[in-house]
Amino acid sequence: MDADEGYVLTPWEVSGNIDYDDLIKRFGTSRIDKTLQDRIENIVGEVHFMLRREIFYSHRDFNWILDQYEKGNRFAMYTGRGPSGHTHVGHLMPWIFAKWLQDKFGVDLYFQLTDDEKFLFNFDMELEKTHSFALENALDVIALGFDPEKTHIFIDTDYINTIYPIALKVAKRLNFSNVKAVFGFDNSTNVGSIFYTSIQSAPCFLPTELEGKDVPVVIPCGIDQDPHFRLTRDIANTIGYFKPALLHNKLAPSLDGTGKMSASIPKTTIFTTDTPKDVKSKLSNAFTGGCISAKEQREKGGNPDICAIQNYRYFIFEENDEEVEKIAKKCRMGDILCGECKAQLIEKVNAFLKKHQDGREKAKDLLDQYIISD
Amino acid sequence: MDADEGYVLTPWEVSGNIDYDDLIKRFGTSRIDKTLQDRIENIVGEVHFMLRREIFYSHRDFNWILDQYEKGNRFAMYTGRGPSGHTHVGHLMPWIFAKWLQDKFGVDLYFQLTDDEKFLFNFDMELEKTHSFALENALDVIALGFDPEKTHIFIDTDYINTIYPIALKVAKRLNFSNVKAVFGFDNSTNVGSIFYTSIQSAPCFLPTELEGKDVPVVIPCGIDQDPHFRLTRDIANTIGYFKPALLHNKLAPSLDGTGKMSASIPKTTIFTTDTPKDVKSKLSNAFTGGCISAKEQREKGGNPDICAIQNYRYFIFEENDEEVEKIAKKCRMGDILCGECKAQLIEKVNAFLKKHQDGREKAKDLLDQYIISD
Repeated sequence: MDADEGYVLTPWEVSGNIDYDDLIKRFGTSRIDKTLQDRIENIVGEVHFMLRREIFYSHRDFNWILDQYEKGNRFAMYTGRGPSGHTHVGHLMPWIFAKWLQDKFGVDLYFQLTDDEKFLFNFDMELEKTHSFALENALDVIALGFDPEKTHIFIDTDYINTIYPIALKVAKRLNFSNVKAVFGFDNSTNVGSIFYTSIQSAPCFLPTELEGKDVPVVIPCGIDQDPHFRLTRDIANTIGYFKPALLHNKLAPSLDGTGKMSASIPKTTIFTTDTPKDVKSKLSNAFTGGCISAKEQREKGGNPDICAIQNYRYFIFEENDEEVEKIAKKCRMGDILCGECKAQLIEKVNAFLKKHQDGREKAKDLLDQYIISD
Repeated sequence: MDADEGYVLTPWEVSGNIDYDDLIKRFGTSRIDKTLQDRIENIVGEVHFMLRREIFYSHRDFNWILDQYEKGNRFAMYTGRGPSGHTHVGHLMPWIFAKWLQDKFGVDLYFQLTDDEKFLFNFDMELEKTHSFALENALDVIALGFDPEKTHIFIDTDYINTIYPIALKVAKRLNFSNVKAVFGFDNSTNVGSIFYTSIQSAPCFLPTELEGKDVPVVIPCGIDQDPHFRLTRDIANTIGYFKPALLHNKLAPSLDGTGKMSASIPKTTIFTTDTPKDVKSKLSNAFTGGCISAKEQREKGGNPDICAIQNYRYFIFEENDEEVEKIAKKCRMGDILCGECKAQLIEKVNAFLKKHQDGREKAKDLLDQYIISD
């Protein structure tokens, strides 16, 4: 994907100001509109704030998933993580949403940790390292409280015996032109990276293989991952499987107010392993919509629309819409200054991380309940 | 590889009249000359007829393997088979030779059955089918009498958990240009085939991984498989392993006197599962160097140099050089006609197959002793 549109978005690179509406057109996905939101609400009795706020804003075939559900065909979910470092709060977004889907629909989740991918796509990264990050990242998944009976986490290199035969079926139907067009590969791309999309496709068909009958699968994931599944969908029927459905989220913004939260820029990213001191320091330095002086801000008010602090609330840390709007209003009126506003979020994030980190500690004893391997 | 040289030779296509001397130049390998033959003889006390007759005629670094051996560093062997059908006697050649090496040097053999390869490279072949041929082909390996303590046969999809992490290290160092240049791939090649050479490379480093120390490895194989290992050798040191050494054999000729014995032309190929009747029929119809009439042949003599029957003797079924020469002489003198000559070989082949097929039956109970899986 080139930068003609003013941004770059592939599964491995996101930069510039992403035009999410443009992505719907370019990728050929459907918007999660009010009708679909209402349909979900009718079935499960509520709408998650990430749907309401259009953070999960785009989909493929989710109406079909609901059709199947209403017919009594339980679907399965699949999502994952590329373990190249610590988990940051942006990664948690689709997982928090998946947890909600699991609670509401009572469905199984398959969670892929792609240690192979991160080894292949990062020249300096050793496989031992990505495997160790995979185990570490699994703690973050478990800490969110997924149902251990219905949640199956696997690390690619430990589950490859099961994944590989499915990946081969996918790989046989994709050629270099296909992956070149979708991912922008060229002749210097390594052959592991060229093959890799087959490994990320395989779990779409894993529930069907494990249960021995056709299981509809929906993938909640960042919109940057859609290219993989576009390829998967193109070939799914040919190899005898249902096409996977998708629910796409917008990517969590960075604390400096530009682009996507990125693990490679730790200063502008909150990791789940951060200490209260880290959080305080990072959020205190975040880009806001405040004025140059307290005096000016009290007079003119701030701009919450461009504020990283307010974005963090909106995307993850404040489920209550009225609360979000209340702070925005106070900001615009000059009734709250950035320091106070930051202090409020710092407290909120640290409370979240305290609970999450406790969960991570407990998760160390629970790995066996969640992790599946060959 | 194009047909500029009047023949095509890749791991997946062999046609035309192969110029084996030309291959040494083009591939940059070394001839197994008298000096190397003598060195082998000095160490183990004899020279196998396939070395003496220059059927195993080319190598890479086999002197280094012998240096290591003489220093007390035991090497390992690796060879394999693409299970797309029944085994034919041409396939047995490098295995018979490997058996001799095992007996003489007391070394371990790792034998790879590439069910994934044959699935990926044959559009109409199902993975279940190639896996089932893999098990069937394993019987042929076992029937040759390899030492069960020192022989480790694996099917890729059953051993991928062990193979995959090694294959990833290889895959990360090979790009599309590399495999395109060596195998003649293009943009329409499927991504599984593009990746596959990494899977065939991995066993070169398997003994090192399993033993936890650097193990020199030599691969006895058809010269058509060399391109895979040329790539492997290029990157081996970079990823911390010894380069594999190679011993290359010429490919067994077809019974119609043209090209290589091919499983896809059953009439001109003897399979290990053939009945005595099959053998009689196929050898009776083989191309020979005989004359148009018995009378003419008694007068002018035949030409054993172009005779498929004589080739079969030379390549596989007659270890005794004097015997081969005796028949050639009789043929040239017109002292033996094709019928008698064929009858003699039919008897020899059927005796061989009788013993081999008995071995295959017994092998069914021995699979557990030879097959390693995850």
